[in-house]
Amino acid sequence: MSERIAFHILRMQENDIQNFVGTVQDAWDKVKPCETCGYWDDVSPCRICGDSARDHAVVCVVETSQDLVAVSRVRNFNGVYHVLGGALSPLDGVGPQDLKINSLLQRISEGGIREIILALNPDMEGESTSDYISKKIRSWAAGQNGAQMFEIKVTRLAQGLPAGSELEYADEMTLLRAFEGRREMSSMPPAETKPQE
Amino acid sequence: MSERIAFHILRMQENDIQNFVGTVQDAWDKVKPCETCGYWDDVSPCRICGDSARDHAVVCVVETSQDLVAVSRVRNFNGVYHVLGGALSPLDGVGPQDLKINSLLQRISEGGIREIILALNPDMEGESTSDYISKKIRSWAAGQNGAQMFEIKVTRLAQGLPAGSELEYADEMTLLRAFEGRREMSSMPPAETKPQE
Repeated sequence: MSERIAFHILRMQENDIQNFVGTVQDAWDKVKPCETCGYWDDVSPCRICGDSARDHAVVCVVETSQDLVAVSRVRNFNGVYHVLGGALSPLDGVGPQDLKINSLLQRISEGGIREIILALNPDMEGESTSDYISKKIRSWAAGQNGAQMFEIKVTRLAQGLPAGSELEYADEMTLLRAFEGRREMSSMPPAETKPQE
Repeated sequence: MSERIAFHILRMQENDIQNFVGTVQDAWDKVKPCETCGYWDDVSPCRICGDSARDHAVVCVVETSQDLVAVSRVRNFNGVYHVLGGALSPLDGVGPQDLKINSLLQRISEGGIREIILALNPDMEGESTSDYISKKIRSWAAGQNGAQMFEIKVTRLAQGLPAGSELEYADEMTLLRAFEGRREMSSMPPAETKPQE
């Protein structure tokens, strides 16, 4: 991909290259990370954080801006985001201070957040980062004196069989997660028509 | 794959082809579907159904024998199986009578089953078949007079992000299912050390 772009640039006309360079410079000058969520925009807070039609009580935590774009395609989700800037990875020297975890706790401490949805990658780094953040939020929410300071739900995305896939070809770990996460099917007759005990 | 096998057979020596044909004939003669679960074996009930070390109270319902093999790789699962022989597909003319649904209800009615895990493919046919079976079991379990005849849990495998995948590349439907199926993370301090309200 980057190769294709490089050769495309090399073949550009003088006029086009000046336009292109100008646009890149302009974007770099104007587009900055949102001071609330960390997503890129030419305004801060970004257009998502500034959108009053969204449910600001539900914050979806993602590793990267690309992940935010992926989640934004899920029509049922109407909350806001928090971009961590990666996942914990001791082998690569990425620790908690390298991610926007403190700013997440800061957002939570300002109140009004009902649920934190941890939408990190379903791999080792993503999972240990989710565990780390969940524990941080819980000890933060519990306060210093054991008095509950915040009432907040911390959830993580379901792991399991991808939609439209075939069970036969699922890897063992995915099947294991699908078993562990199995859910009871809702009963057939709606609650009101069911005989009450 | 089938092409490769075909050409391999055509290139066989006389001796080998006789052995091969003999083995195929032998297998066909001996291996029959288990009268309990529908899986293939040269004994009936099959070695799985006959294994007293397994938990016969948990039955995992799969579409095909290949799916059973996939599930059998999940180490945590120690129950037994029921092979439906496919999924409902009105367009292909596959109705309830073409699948081993009645024999599943028969197994349930014999008692001793605590949970039915519906492990069908996460596609349209698999999902509508799961719904159909779940409803059948519930109305069967409810009995004719509204009196609860059987206490039985019907679950389905989790849908969501496959283990080790990247959220960025997940399709919209899989992400939607991962959101819908999100689960609360267990609280950090174990229950016994948590202050009781």
